[in-house]
Amino acid sequence: MSKPRINTMLELSVAIGVSRPTLSRFFQDPALVKPNTAKRIQEGLSRVEYVPNFFATRMNRKSTRLIGVIIPYLNDLFFTKLLESIEVAAMASGMTVITQCSHSDPVIEARAAETLMSMSVDGALVAPLGDQSDDAVQLRLRSRLPFVLMDSRPATMSNVDFVGTNHVQSTGLITEYLCRVGRPPVFLAMPRVNFNAREREAAYIARMTHLGHRPEVIGTELLSSDWHFEDHGEAVLSAEFGAGRLLDRSILCANDRVAIGAIRAAARHGLVPGRQAEGGLRIAGHDDYPLCPYLNPALTTVAQDTNAIGRKAVSRLLEIIGSDGLQDEPEITLFEGSLKLRESA
Amino acid sequence: MSKPRINTMLELSVAIGVSRPTLSRFFQDPALVKPNTAKRIQEGLSRVEYVPNFFATRMNRKSTRLIGVIIPYLNDLFFTKLLESIEVAAMASGMTVITQCSHSDPVIEARAAETLMSMSVDGALVAPLGDQSDDAVQLRLRSRLPFVLMDSRPATMSNVDFVGTNHVQSTGLITEYLCRVGRPPVFLAMPRVNFNAREREAAYIARMTHLGHRPEVIGTELLSSDWHFEDHGEAVLSAEFGAGRLLDRSILCANDRVAIGAIRAAARHGLVPGRQAEGGLRIAGHDDYPLCPYLNPALTTVAQDTNAIGRKAVSRLLEIIGSDGLQDEPEITLFEGSLKLRESA
Repeated sequence: MSKPRINTMLELSVAIGVSRPTLSRFFQDPALVKPNTAKRIQEGLSRVEYVPNFFATRMNRKSTRLIGVIIPYLNDLFFTKLLESIEVAAMASGMTVITQCSHSDPVIEARAAETLMSMSVDGALVAPLGDQSDDAVQLRLRSRLPFVLMDSRPATMSNVDFVGTNHVQSTGLITEYLCRVGRPPVFLAMPRVNFNAREREAAYIARMTHLGHRPEVIGTELLSSDWHFEDHGEAVLSAEFGAGRLLDRSILCANDRVAIGAIRAAARHGLVPGRQAEGGLRIAGHDDYPLCPYLNPALTTVAQDTNAIGRKAVSRLLEIIGSDGLQDEPEITLFEGSLKLRESA
Repeated sequence: MSKPRINTMLELSVAIGVSRPTLSRFFQDPALVKPNTAKRIQEGLSRVEYVPNFFATRMNRKSTRLIGVIIPYLNDLFFTKLLESIEVAAMASGMTVITQCSHSDPVIEARAAETLMSMSVDGALVAPLGDQSDDAVQLRLRSRLPFVLMDSRPATMSNVDFVGTNHVQSTGLITEYLCRVGRPPVFLAMPRVNFNAREREAAYIARMTHLGHRPEVIGTELLSSDWHFEDHGEAVLSAEFGAGRLLDRSILCANDRVAIGAIRAAARHGLVPGRQAEGGLRIAGHDDYPLCPYLNPALTTVAQDTNAIGRKAVSRLLEIIGSDGLQDEPEITLFEGSLKLRESA
């Protein structure tokens, strides 16, 4: 026999004989009603089919227990890993995560910000689009809500809570490794629309200069329209290899997805990047994209600690939420990268 | 000068001189108030800083314009592609998507279903976990909400609205292709905890039998705990190759992520699967995972039409929502797969 279905708190109040305000307190926190009453409500709930209405139970509460997250695009395992660590950390704190994706479009990013505000999330975690991101939108979000920026940082937002990777350290680490084991690397960059890629490029140049080597950057021109990172890496290196250039160089890619395309270009030209080959082609990346170990050859890279970034972003946001707008100075947390030595360099 | 900030609809009513019920109708649909009044409200809104409260404006409405989506895990580009097509289709219909991820855990899946119900989403799209998914949870969700199942289907839910791929056709297509161009394929399956993998295995066996070949299935044993699809493919084929078996066979993998591991195992044993090699090793997959074109060798596979699946799931759900519970028989939509011939087979 199926249980009677209850749709509103008023019906529930009648069905189990407890006043509506008492029920409301119970759904806010069972500890707010007497133990006997709580027991009676729990027994009553087990006899009926009822789901408390999220909107009704939270409208008059100060907190919705919702965290809003905006990520720039979905089809990238770096962001899904980051989102996973955010969701796990939020769940552990009893928060529910509402994620909106910008789908690489600043108009959708702005709409996502409005959606989060209109849903009265307790706070927002945002990984912005690159240069296309509208800083005004982020600043408006931040002026209304506890707000932590993640992953990449526009110059205009240097004074905002931020959690990400220390690209000076991470890119420096792999640049130094490549210099130590072979010819100093060329940097396969990206068209300059992405803060992180630019930060890594600058870090590469600084470290090379510091080590007394001449930096060489390629790939800042857009070779294919409607590009994905992989296509970009493949197009740039195919052009170089096709012209007989860089065949025995070390190539450091701005990220692993660019490196996936670079390895593909090498294969098409009959080249196998690797650390065995004395003086031969080497390819390395940045991020530790989940597929790196399965590539042929497996990709040598420097890992971002996405788990730590996600956990810290959530804990910092909860701190700001808990401080009722009285937080101190913005906190900038940069995690270090770690080398993942595999076959490609 | 910054605009005065308005927090409630009552404050807004005072600030712009329009009654609260009129404002409420306006936020439901601007066409519900007189054109002059709408204009006055719009002008008023441009003078103040106000975000309508999602909970307040929708609590008494029949529709929240929210679609709830549950996916089994995040770190899989098949599901992110599906989610992307759902979000794009939903946006085009003025709906907002709330996605919850099960993180491979039936307890989290059940909680996600409760969250969607408590948020009064207008309807739910669910891609269930494999055999671990609790059918009772899905059926409860379906009894309370417009509901469409996606991607994979438990036997107990054959009578539910469903959108997915026709695995008999898709797996048959690639089985037949492999038989035509080389030795009839072995099927690299998965531990039998996943409906789709089982459907594909059955479709492979049926097509092979129909073509007069003896089906051979490997990989139904779990070789590594805490497995990912790639690890599974690599472990199974490494064991086979290590024992000198299957070195010159055609191998059809249950999905592309298994095939990524299979290609990796081949590389470790100095084997290059390809269609050039007369009688040599061939490896093929299923899905058209976004990275297939960048593998070495690029993976031959049969594509699922994730765009069509996402779009159809949304349109069918909106149909059910629009029918006010008066929908006819459940509708089962299966899209056909299409061959993607690349290098590996």
